[in-house]
This record gives sequence, C-alpha cells and structure tokens, in this order.
Amino acid sequence: MNILLVNDDGINAPGLSILYDAVCDLGNITVVAPDGERSAISHSITLDKPMPVKSYKNGKFEGMAVCGTPADCVKLALTEIMDERPDLVISGINLGCNTGLNVIYSGTVGGAAEAVFNGIPGIAVSLATYKNPNWGPVARFIHDMVKTIQEKGMPEGILLNVNVPNVINPNDIAGVKISEQGMAHWQETFDKRVDPKGRTYYWMSGMKKERVESETIDDTVIKSNYISVTPIQFNLTAYNKIKSIKALGLNYQGKQ
Amino acid sequence: MNILLVNDDGINAPGLSILYDAVCDLGNITVVAPDGERSAISHSITLDKPMPVKSYKNGKFEGMAVCGTPADCVKLALTEIMDERPDLVISGINLGCNTGLNVIYSGTVGGAAEAVFNGIPGIAVSLATYKNPNWGPVARFIHDMVKTIQEKGMPEGILLNVNVPNVINPNDIAGVKISEQGMAHWQETFDKRVDPKGRTYYWMSGMKKERVESETIDDTVIKSNYISVTPIQFNLTAYNKIKSIKALGLNYQGKQ
Repeated sequence: MNILLVNDDGINAPGLSILYDAVCDLGNITVVAPDGERSAISHSITLDKPMPVKSYKNGKFEGMAVCGTPADCVKLALTEIMDERPDLVISGINLGCNTGLNVIYSGTVGGAAEAVFNGIPGIAVSLATYKNPNWGPVARFIHDMVKTIQEKGMPEGILLNVNVPNVINPNDIAGVKISEQGMAHWQETFDKRVDPKGRTYYWMSGMKKERVESETIDDTVIKSNYISVTPIQFNLTAYNKIKSIKALGLNYQGKQ
Repeated sequence: MNILLVNDDGINAPGLSILYDAVCDLGNITVVAPDGERSAISHSITLDKPMPVKSYKNGKFEGMAVCGTPADCVKLALTEIMDERPDLVISGINLGCNTGLNVIYSGTVGGAAEAVFNGIPGIAVSLATYKNPNWGPVARFIHDMVKTIQEKGMPEGILLNVNVPNVINPNDIAGVKISEQGMAHWQETFDKRVDPKGRTYYWMSGMKKERVESETIDDTVIKSNYISVTPIQFNLTAYNKIKSIKALGLNYQGKQ
C-alpha cells in the first residue's frame, strides 16, 4: 500500500513524526507537507505565486517541504512527486480537535479532502488538545484503523475525520464512535492595536462557543472520552431547502 | 436593511463596484473587503499574524480594506466595524464561476459562509467568465433577488450560491434554476522551474475536467444559459455512509 502523509502544522511538527511512526510498517510512505505552519488555511490553494519545494530529511523520514498549503501538497504529490498514485492519504496528526464548524476552516481536513476529490481515500487525524499531548492513544488507533482499512476497504467519495481525546492514561479512552459533524462555532475576539506609525491592526483570537448537541455529534463524543470518527462528504447542497427557495419565485426579467 | 458587501478579488475589483451599484438603493451598505486579491483562499482565516485595516474610498463608496481573507473581513465587520449586525451579507461579484467542487476552494463562498455561521443570510455571486464580462445581467438579477428576499425572507442556515452565465445580449439569459452543487473538479498541471540560485519551484495551473452531470447541477444549468442558484449548507456528514463505516468495526484496544 502506498500511503501519502500530509499535515497543516508543517513538516517539522511532532504530530507528523508520530503519524509516520504509527503507520510506517503498513506500506510505502511518502511525506509531502508544508514548510511551516498552515493552520486554519482550509482548502486554500496557491494560484497566484510560485511554490518553492525542497527536499527534507530528519532522523526518521525523508520528504518534500512545500511552500504551500496542505491541498497544494496533495495536488503536487499526486501530479509531480509520486511515481505511483497513493492508495491512502492521511493528514495530521493535528494538535487541536477539528470538530463542528472547525471542519470547514481546517487545513488538516483540507489536505485529506484533496485526496477524496481525486478518488483516493482520505483520513484527517486530530488530537483534542493544544498542550501536553499524549500521542500514545491516537498513534495506536490510527495504526489499527489503517490496518482495518487495508483489510476491509473504505467507501468511496468520503474522508474519515478522526478526533481523539487527550487522556493521561491510555485506558481512559472509552472506545470508538462513528459520529456526525456538529455545528459548534468559535466566538472571535479582536485585539485592536496601533503600530509605531499610527496604523491600525487587529489580532484575532477566540474561543469555542459551548453548544448543546446530541450524543452522536463529534464534540459530544470526544467529551465523553470516545474517539470520534465522522464520515465527511463534499456535496454541500441543502437539498431540504430547495423547495422553499423555489417558492421565492426568483426570476430574471420575468423569466423563471 | 443593513447589507454587508465582501469579495475575494479585493476592494478595488470591478465586480465589487458593480455589486455596490446593484444593491445600494436597497439598504445601508457597508463594504469590508480584502486589500488585494484572495482568490482560492477558501474559508482560510488569519490566526498567526496581525491584520492591518485601512479606510478605503473610491469615487463610489467608502469602506475598510483588510489585509486578510474574505472570512476575516466578515468576522471583523461583525465584531468590530459595524455598529449594527447586517441583515444580509453578499460576497462578490466574482469573475469566474464557483460551481462544482470550486465551491470548496472559493473565497467568495467563504465570505458568505461566514455570515451563515453567524446566523445571517449570505449570498455568493459569480459571473461565469474570466474575460470580457457583461455585468448587466448579474447586476440586474442580484438587485431583483435581494428585493425578493427583503419581501419574502430567506431560509436560515444556508447561503445562496448564485452563478450567472456571461452573455453578450442580456436577453440571452434563459431564466433562473434552483440547482444542486455538482462534483466537477479541476485537473491541475504544474510548471516546474528552477530559480537563478538553482532552487526548484512550481507554478500551478489547470483546467476544469468535463463531467457529464444531470440537468439540475450548477455547471449544467449555466451551460444552458440559465442563472444557477444553489442553496448551500455546512454540515458535511456523509449520513448515507455511517452504516458502512460502523460495519468496519473500528475499535481501540478491543473497545468499540
């Protein structure tokens, strides 16, 4: 099995190295990742400037470092870098969960999505903490999950969005739940400042708005110490709203 | 009605000016837009650097130019710039259609989506051409559409993704169809070059892959000279795949 690894925290990030260790015995691994952090870059791609690409090597793996986004990395890997198409693309391991509407902003999900757009199974993996990560459980789970997919396959046209709770004791993980994406959002705050030349600028920060959602929603699943696995697809049509939009009777110069 | 305008082509782009003209008689207009082009920036947001914001004025309107993405602009407008929440956010008018999987990459859609995440109706508007735009039909349609929404309202939790064919004669528009997002994708090509210092870089380009899709799909609708209006929502859960993912029996140390 040819496995492509990507992330949005950059090729130097510990999460990528942990991911490499977790799956390196399961296939031929290729690493193509951004040359630095690209968090919250979503599905952004680089169309209006050139993308420098460098060879990269650390004590563990070799790869290509791209001055671009996770989606750029996967596009480049498929088109230019890999001799054979990958059978699986794994993006992560991200520090911080990608649940609720974060799925939309996430560069980690963006990388795995690019695989799906090209007919290749994709997995996005995140650990639900920004500090003191315990990588053990997520590494173990992703290893076993890839092995299962090798044996049983994966449905086409989707990615699996995996979020693992951060626990001190690996046995504190309660199990695995197949979940739904929630709609939890962040409440932004902006810190307004003035630079030495008198020009205004803002720093964005924020915190996740608490939202009561059902037991099957990604954020709820993680809170009860289960690993959350959400199947994600990319047809955004609001089918249940088509009738009411038709009822608006939108027209152009009298033509409907 | 308070209407916020944003785009991804930048505050100087002709499409934004046309949009302003089209809707300025329908409410109080606020313009907050990127200070330059941010195409294909998707839902990217700026978390790791400050965002300079400047006042902007041209012969037609005043606004704020943000060194950030369309999503940043809407977040800033809602939180810091506008005294009252907008009743409607319109993003565009983009040059080039945002149909099929382009919906995922589009900064224009990203701006309108940010409105939806905050409980405000959003509209993304694109003209299906990169050159020789005839702005007349799209301007006329968006004016009439906003007027209809003022009278009849709009369902919650969605944005309307509007794509208008580029015609020479305004009467060539066949009418309006409420459509579904297609899955058409681009086939990238990369131009590999070496800089004067011997370092490799790539330029990305590509063209849309032709894809035969049903008559109700956005791209098909535009090809038959209809205006395409797609209701878009942001719960990406692949509900029809949950059963088959459950059947994989993923588990953690024997716990399901």
